[in-house]
Amino acid sequence: MPVNLREPGALAPIAGARWASADAAIKKPGGDDMALLVLDEGATAAGVFTRNVFAAAPVVLARRHLATAAPRALLINSGNANAGTGVEGEADALTCCRRVAEALGLQTEQVLPFSTGVIGQRLPMARIEPVLPDLARALAEDAWLGAARAIMTTDTVPKGVTRCIEIDGAPVTLTGISKGSGMIRPDMATMLSFVATDASVAASDLDHALREAVNTSFNSITVDGDTSTNDAAMLCATGAGVVLAPDRPGWSAFVDALRDVMVTLACAIVRDAEGATRFITLAVEGAASVDEARAVAFTVAHSPLFKTAAFAGDPNWGRILAAVGRAPVTDLTIDGVDIALDAVPIVAGGQPRADYREADAAAVMAQPEFTVHIRLGRGDAAATIWTSDLSYEYVRINAEYRS
Amino acid sequence: MPVNLREPGALAPIAGARWASADAAIKKPGGDDMALLVLDEGATAAGVFTRNVFAAAPVVLARRHLATAAPRALLINSGNANAGTGVEGEADALTCCRRVAEALGLQTEQVLPFSTGVIGQRLPMARIEPVLPDLARALAEDAWLGAARAIMTTDTVPKGVTRCIEIDGAPVTLTGISKGSGMIRPDMATMLSFVATDASVAASDLDHALREAVNTSFNSITVDGDTSTNDAAMLCATGAGVVLAPDRPGWSAFVDALRDVMVTLACAIVRDAEGATRFITLAVEGAASVDEARAVAFTVAHSPLFKTAAFAGDPNWGRILAAVGRAPVTDLTIDGVDIALDAVPIVAGGQPRADYREADAAAVMAQPEFTVHIRLGRGDAAATIWTSDLSYEYVRINAEYRS
Repeated sequence: MPVNLREPGALAPIAGARWASADAAIKKPGGDDMALLVLDEGATAAGVFTRNVFAAAPVVLARRHLATAAPRALLINSGNANAGTGVEGEADALTCCRRVAEALGLQTEQVLPFSTGVIGQRLPMARIEPVLPDLARALAEDAWLGAARAIMTTDTVPKGVTRCIEIDGAPVTLTGISKGSGMIRPDMATMLSFVATDASVAASDLDHALREAVNTSFNSITVDGDTSTNDAAMLCATGAGVVLAPDRPGWSAFVDALRDVMVTLACAIVRDAEGATRFITLAVEGAASVDEARAVAFTVAHSPLFKTAAFAGDPNWGRILAAVGRAPVTDLTIDGVDIALDAVPIVAGGQPRADYREADAAAVMAQPEFTVHIRLGRGDAAATIWTSDLSYEYVRINAEYRS
Repeated sequence: MPVNLREPGALAPIAGARWASADAAIKKPGGDDMALLVLDEGATAAGVFTRNVFAAAPVVLARRHLATAAPRALLINSGNANAGTGVEGEADALTCCRRVAEALGLQTEQVLPFSTGVIGQRLPMARIEPVLPDLARALAEDAWLGAARAIMTTDTVPKGVTRCIEIDGAPVTLTGISKGSGMIRPDMATMLSFVATDASVAASDLDHALREAVNTSFNSITVDGDTSTNDAAMLCATGAGVVLAPDRPGWSAFVDALRDVMVTLACAIVRDAEGATRFITLAVEGAASVDEARAVAFTVAHSPLFKTAAFAGDPNWGRILAAVGRAPVTDLTIDGVDIALDAVPIVAGGQPRADYREADAAAVMAQPEFTVHIRLGRGDAAATIWTSDLSYEYVRINAEYRS
């Protein structure tokens, strides 16, 4: 049961970006497991990828192709990560790109492959290859939701969002989809996310905007601290609409809207985290640096003891303080640490406040979402991280994943 | 259900070290929750403590007293950690020391306090103080097992071990007890461990031997990556027996026996880890440094995805490789990584071996204990870490801990 997350309503089409999806019988329960995004000529694109050194074959290939040519097609499959598959895996991914390129009249390097699912198994090419021409024929601008569904693995809800802004009287639309619910600790990337806009943006500006937005969105969530072998976040601009650039009016409005889209998609992943019953915001303030604030927030977010207490709705604040106390921060003293749950102050100077009543904190933690405020008293830097709790269901999903 | 761990049989008494235990109604289900160890005059002692900056009141006091005087009495309570209790908590711990000192005719600084249990609640002094004189009257050399039982919290089995060696024809005995089953990632210390020997050892030599033994025992285990606010490992030498020193014969035999005792006690904690169904050894070889080997081992040991796969007995080796791939190691390449489960080789050069059959690996993981061998191909350094799996029961215990 996702936490306060519903299927997205209408996802606005992006002029110049067309999707198709299909079922190649890769995923267990049926349903579409292949999606193809095709961009009109002249589109630009940027991408960030996992920093796990055990990168999957499609990541290796997508990085290489992105460095070589302007992408025109993105092919995604769910149900199989094509990771740990060695040179054969790379050959399979390359074959997929080649077949898509043939069907669309593109160069192979203009096609980027993405895979997500089980690690260590070869792609079922005999089932995938026949589907690729079908995908190329079925492309439509109004097919974002179907694509959001096709890239799901253990996700229970498709994830997508649209934002429309006006820049100098002209409309600019951003639509994005994402997938992910476990093995989530993006590192310069997310699980899988594909965002497109109809604006016209130079590839280098797009790359810059993407990296900034990723830091405070996909790089600020964690479910279980495990980074995937296949994480990727792509941002595409079809060029069908207004021209945007950092030195033109409206750039900051565009960057804000992009960040909003990416935070929404990132938080949707946490809301749908495997077994999640709580959506938890960790807001650390008073740090000497943003890195320090993030280190403290992630240490709490990864603590199984904090996560199980959150599952139980138990305001066992000692576990928060103990996690802060072991965070990799130099010369931290616990006497300067304040903790509050939503508007309920609990700890001041490393000790429970005299006016603290456990019932107040228990009421906060009984909610499906709440914020843990941690003040370090060391400086002015802050960071916000989103995470989920650790439940029986998380264990069940991950114990039974392959059975 | 602990993994291959039974109640210790006979724990040999140590001449010059006497224990007593009692019930002060601190722990929920009854049973003893106070223990007192008294050492004869002339004994030496060494201790290592948690590096969590949120250290509990008894840790603050024990550190201070240990720096001031030669310890003669160690007072331990379970059921309440006396952590996050501020100046009142320190006053409570000091009062305990003072009362024990009065009852035994010692200086207050010769008494060291230790607490373990719930964080953030004051010690129930009204119930503890009357028990202290009783403890001082009930001391006996043959009471190690009762003490091992009294210091338990969520432990299901008391933990203790005895080793007897002969040095130059004279017997030397070491007996130790430990407690701990969750919030386990010792950092220069353990949960609680008390080891005594009848040898005569200078305090500085004892300190050196303890720190070395701790590194490859208590500092090489993890259950959930959470370090406690109360961790402490104490080593006492009563001086009733032979004189040992680094420049005398038998010192290395003594150090080996000490390490054996501490590894047994540390592994007993992992075998009795909260909800554990597997006892897992992570043996990393071929690292450029011991730190690097430990970093890789701990990254795998802390991966919830590896731990849930272990619970399921699922040889999902991609999760091991993905954890290795995100370990904080500079310039790691996955192409040099080999993985084996016990004697079953699985991954070579970052890819599954051609002769790998999943049934072989599944047979290894069906066992209650097994070893994950990881070879990095970067150098000659190695490290061994012990950990447990992540089960429904872990979540239940930690979600219901205070209810």
